[in-house]
Amino acid sequence: MTKTPVCVVGLGLIGGSVMRAAAAAGREVFGYNRSLESVSAARADGYDATDDIDEALSRAADRNALVVLAVPVPALPLMLGHVRDLAPECPLTDVTSVKSAVLQAVQNFGLLERFVGGHPMAGTAHSGWAAGDARMFVDAPWVVSVDDHVQPGIWAEVMALALDCGAFVVPARSDEHDAAAATISHLPHLLAEALAVTAGEVPLAFALAAGSFRDGTRVAATAPDLVRAMCEANADQLVPVLERSLELLNHARDALVAQRPLSDLIEAGHAARVRYDSFSRPEIVTIAVGEENWREELAAAGRAGGVIRSALPVLGSRGESPRRRR
Amino acid sequence: MTKTPVCVVGLGLIGGSVMRAAAAAGREVFGYNRSLESVSAARADGYDATDDIDEALSRAADRNALVVLAVPVPALPLMLGHVRDLAPECPLTDVTSVKSAVLQAVQNFGLLERFVGGHPMAGTAHSGWAAGDARMFVDAPWVVSVDDHVQPGIWAEVMALALDCGAFVVPARSDEHDAAAATISHLPHLLAEALAVTAGEVPLAFALAAGSFRDGTRVAATAPDLVRAMCEANADQLVPVLERSLELLNHARDALVAQRPLSDLIEAGHAARVRYDSFSRPEIVTIAVGEENWREELAAAGRAGGVIRSALPVLGSRGESPRRRR
Repeated sequence: MTKTPVCVVGLGLIGGSVMRAAAAAGREVFGYNRSLESVSAARADGYDATDDIDEALSRAADRNALVVLAVPVPALPLMLGHVRDLAPECPLTDVTSVKSAVLQAVQNFGLLERFVGGHPMAGTAHSGWAAGDARMFVDAPWVVSVDDHVQPGIWAEVMALALDCGAFVVPARSDEHDAAAATISHLPHLLAEALAVTAGEVPLAFALAAGSFRDGTRVAATAPDLVRAMCEANADQLVPVLERSLELLNHARDALVAQRPLSDLIEAGHAARVRYDSFSRPEIVTIAVGEENWREELAAAGRAGGVIRSALPVLGSRGESPRRRR
Repeated sequence: MTKTPVCVVGLGLIGGSVMRAAAAAGREVFGYNRSLESVSAARADGYDATDDIDEALSRAADRNALVVLAVPVPALPLMLGHVRDLAPECPLTDVTSVKSAVLQAVQNFGLLERFVGGHPMAGTAHSGWAAGDARMFVDAPWVVSVDDHVQPGIWAEVMALALDCGAFVVPARSDEHDAAAATISHLPHLLAEALAVTAGEVPLAFALAAGSFRDGTRVAATAPDLVRAMCEANADQLVPVLERSLELLNHARDALVAQRPLSDLIEAGHAARVRYDSFSRPEIVTIAVGEENWREELAAAGRAGGVIRSALPVLGSRGESPRRRR
């Protein structure tokens, strides 16, 4: 069984890493990037890249490739227009961090039926082709969305790509993903920025800063444009969790002023962190993609910590590539 | 020149590490701990420990040892009473994280003249003798206070102990230390607790949590009693920096709700973190302990990032141990 070719649209940190990882897994991979500089860098590293989107997507249509959207959120509508015009039948996924916004954009372009959203939860503070790494996704969670519309064959294609890249798959609904991402990624960025700003205003703070400050502000080193893009695009989900943290911190402030104990916050925080440390990731093995209620069952399993480490069976699949079964 | 003996009062994580490090540096070290269990553990590891405070402090007085207070803040008054009764002439320091409260307690017991506060900025999430490590302080900042009252000879003793333990010395006033510690240690703990609690309430959050959540909540794994003790004891300094962070985060919330850009917070946070990454630690070499304005000069040098990596000269010292010059 030949592996599905991959067309990566956008060869930055994540897209460039997907290209390298998919190639390392033995796939045919080709890609597009807007800037000729990154295209040249990718070519110099031996990859098949072009700055001509028509060329890349026509080839994707010809090869029935899995198209991976790896451009920043603001560039999505432009790229989706090209996909609609040139490769509307190709299975389509993305690797961006806010799933509801992407889902809406995909729907606007009439491409929902061929689309399954994805989000590899990996990265560094750097960006661009040169920062990419074929091993970026090894042992990292890769969310594959199980929204109501998703088709089994396409879902299986995206699962297979994530597994090929060394990740494990977390099945999740787009809205639940976005609420979780707001909490464990976007909120920590805002807290880190606030901590860094506050410390920058206190004499001697940097001179004494050690582990807890370094850890607490590490993500403040991320490029401001990237942080803005992900926080602002997920504002709907970020506001309520930010408000919850503000409420907890305001109570702590009131307790400190009144010389009352900080037990409430500190004991709950400790308990939550201990619970996280012992959070297990059972492997999902009993669900077949395409069976009755498979989307709901995968969403429930993912919520409980379940992950997919080797490809689940796809119902009706008889050893042929799932995309041929439509 | 014989090194001054050291009497460590309290053999937990920090005190136990001081005992090991001072012994490794070739000092005579003995210590006291309230619980016989830790005393037995220390003895089993080959150290000189007792659960009899009278015995430990009488020996300290006899040997003119440097007494290191390494008990939790609530136990300080009891221990200071014993020191006043049994070893009032010994040079005295401490290793606790809130310097103004200790300074006040020391003053209450009439021991200010022999006291120079200290704070090694190192530790782990664990506690107790068994968690200690002779290399705990290697390359860590060790604050030695330069408050108005401090005596050159005693200051030099504390500096020498910190350097013997492998730390570098940051000279700082107690009030400035406490404001900085509130910002770079106590505030990060509260933010980490709030983040952990918030995430614990969102389905799927732990399932997706990766680097930024792990880093942002690492210190929430610290024992709640320790976090409470340091935050509550430093409430005066913690409240204003917590309020500053709340102000920044409230502005961010308002911007998100109004769909305005988050540029203010994110760009300032990034700039502060970049500034921290390039913060240099020039070595202090031109100041002699005891010269005119030495306390003010050391405080200014510490504020600018200056550190002491090898013992500064002590004015009037002629190769004899500074404590003999009184």
